[in-house]
Amino acid sequence: MSHESTSPLPPICQPAGFRYGAVRAGIKPSGKPDFACALAVEGTTAAAVFTSNRLIAAPVIVGREHLRQSGGLVRFLAVNAGNANCATGEPGIEVCREVCTAAAKKFGCTEQQVFPSSTGIIGVQLPGEKLISALPQIAVELGDTPARIQQFAEAIMTTDTRVKMASVTLDIGGRPVRILGVAKGAGMIAPQLVPHATMLVYLFTDAKITAHDLQIFLNRAIGPTFNCISIDGDTSTNDTVLLLASGASGVALTSSSDGSETAAFAEALQTVCASLARQIVEDGEGVGHVIELAIEGASTAEDAKRIARSIAQSPLVKTAFAGCDPNWGRILAAAGYAGAAFDPAKVSVWIGGLPVCRHGQVAADFDKNRVHRAMLERTVPVRVELGLGNATCHFLACDLTAEYVHVNAEYST
Amino acid sequence: MSHESTSPLPPICQPAGFRYGAVRAGIKPSGKPDFACALAVEGTTAAAVFTSNRLIAAPVIVGREHLRQSGGLVRFLAVNAGNANCATGEPGIEVCREVCTAAAKKFGCTEQQVFPSSTGIIGVQLPGEKLISALPQIAVELGDTPARIQQFAEAIMTTDTRVKMASVTLDIGGRPVRILGVAKGAGMIAPQLVPHATMLVYLFTDAKITAHDLQIFLNRAIGPTFNCISIDGDTSTNDTVLLLASGASGVALTSSSDGSETAAFAEALQTVCASLARQIVEDGEGVGHVIELAIEGASTAEDAKRIARSIAQSPLVKTAFAGCDPNWGRILAAAGYAGAAFDPAKVSVWIGGLPVCRHGQVAADFDKNRVHRAMLERTVPVRVELGLGNATCHFLACDLTAEYVHVNAEYST
Repeated sequence: MSHESTSPLPPICQPAGFRYGAVRAGIKPSGKPDFACALAVEGTTAAAVFTSNRLIAAPVIVGREHLRQSGGLVRFLAVNAGNANCATGEPGIEVCREVCTAAAKKFGCTEQQVFPSSTGIIGVQLPGEKLISALPQIAVELGDTPARIQQFAEAIMTTDTRVKMASVTLDIGGRPVRILGVAKGAGMIAPQLVPHATMLVYLFTDAKITAHDLQIFLNRAIGPTFNCISIDGDTSTNDTVLLLASGASGVALTSSSDGSETAAFAEALQTVCASLARQIVEDGEGVGHVIELAIEGASTAEDAKRIARSIAQSPLVKTAFAGCDPNWGRILAAAGYAGAAFDPAKVSVWIGGLPVCRHGQVAADFDKNRVHRAMLERTVPVRVELGLGNATCHFLACDLTAEYVHVNAEYST
Repeated sequence: MSHESTSPLPPICQPAGFRYGAVRAGIKPSGKPDFACALAVEGTTAAAVFTSNRLIAAPVIVGREHLRQSGGLVRFLAVNAGNANCATGEPGIEVCREVCTAAAKKFGCTEQQVFPSSTGIIGVQLPGEKLISALPQIAVELGDTPARIQQFAEAIMTTDTRVKMASVTLDIGGRPVRILGVAKGAGMIAPQLVPHATMLVYLFTDAKITAHDLQIFLNRAIGPTFNCISIDGDTSTNDTVLLLASGASGVALTSSSDGSETAAFAEALQTVCASLARQIVEDGEGVGHVIELAIEGASTAEDAKRIARSIAQSPLVKTAFAGCDPNWGRILAAAGYAGAAFDPAKVSVWIGGLPVCRHGQVAADFDKNRVHRAMLERTVPVRVELGLGNATCHFLACDLTAEYVHVNAEYST
């Protein structure tokens, strides 16, 4: 199962080679901290994946270009919340570049080694001068204490109600290697990352890994984690997952080795990604219930994912879960229009571990009241057995509540 | 524009050759009339289109089989509301057949000339004996007065708040030809009919048309009408559009003629379908605003429709309209992930006839308060000009309100 249970990870650890800071730049109307930065040691490698939306925010365009130009080297990460700098045309790209240039000058690197990110409202020009004037204060704030990481994580929040962090420490040949992840995202969440989110995820490690190998590690980690969650089915214009490796642990790793160290790092990275993906859904806008979808017995992995996504995005399924209503027919209907191989006579469904549908009909032992009680839980597992093959998909979804509507009917006003 | 404006159609006319009736069979928990029937004269031809969902209700399976076996002849239409007879397996199909057999016996036709329909909750066995025992009362009720048509239209309602009817009378060579349509549907509405809803639509005409030609007329009429609406993006298991032609007007028509009569009939049929499609969206569950989407300048008609559907089904777009929030960035984002050709730099958007976005950026003359006021209207036109080609799509959508959530979080409990 790719989405780890909510068992707590150990306390947040800090990969060596990074410093963090955040300030109030005046982008968020609330006046809360909205500019989060991280400074990495020289030689830090980077890999990233971005949204597949064809409307792409300026920082995604610039960030991708910088990674290519720098050969996958990042020294400075500059993230603002409150404004997505998307649908802002050439002026938006210019502003983004100006912020990068100013940061490069301030922190002694090339502008191609600055990685920009933005999240917030679409279609409003980003006041870049506010970010630029905040850079001196950022320089003062930078540090590597847990408090600094906490500030970074808070400043990137928009409609999030809590910070999202996860970390793992590995022992590789007697030496510690650390992975830390920080994420934000509560709405417009249905990531379809390429090579496969406004989900923003920053992953930091002190392993020593080339940019090329880092990208391979990252590509493997995102498929079963960030690409298997949906809050509202809206794929954002700004989704970004950035993985930075400082090398400061002195432990070198490659993605191609068959060794246990490579496997251990890959597993640890996926654990951090899975924890962050779950935290994002747990904190989804208006979420009352988290639905742990397990699609089994599909013909192909692609079909399993298509059915999972169709169920996860069905307003009728989502509202049934909001009402703790064991209306399993809606689950079947959403599976039926997913465009995947589906045989109603072979499908069986369990909600909260209890049978509701067997071979396309109501389960003989369906106990509506018992299932209703199981659905009162915050987390509800749903298992759909298709009976067609061996492919599976584990997907995290959530209900659709009146609170979601309230949050999103009043966003920009 | 395929979706006609709400200008009132003339009073409901009655095609000759049909009688209608409805009774309380005890299927709806409310005790309201729930069994609607129509009896057609001998020789009445039929054409139908059904849902593309792979979970198909028993009456869809049986109805399709009957049309094939009878060579497109229908004498009796039997529709129950309150139970979809879907995900009910072989027993569900058996019950459906039993009702058809009993109706055939009662009304003097073959069971293949009986067309069954069901709408309501999925996964609960249909108590066929209640329908069978109601047939004698149906026989008493059948009539061709406006009151009978009204009763038919009321009995097929589920979460609908009002009846949906439309009709047109054509003058063909001095003789009147009538088309009457009756529909239901307020949720699980995102029809994807094959050859292209639980939308149920019954169209009656007294033109004389072969079953083969009738199907051609029907296929042409549904594309720009029923297949261009969405309430919640959930494609139902029971969607059915049935067109019956009694021939009682004595006016024979063919689909292949180049004559003005064929064109006039086709246009009238589409007018009736467009009116019913709009009535369905107007009465959608919890709908506060109807969104008239016009996608223009697309590369292909398929792309235009894909972008229309993506915008129509975006929870963030829908909640923005619920809040009368001119958050046009959400419209662009939904267009961007539609999987169609899309160039952000070329796209312009108008809401309520007012410019909001030009060439991918906020329009210079964007007046947020003015657009907000335009969005207070019940019906809000949205025009998206893609700047890529000449293909267009007109699509009717609606907002997503807290009321929608309330309606659907309490459906089966």
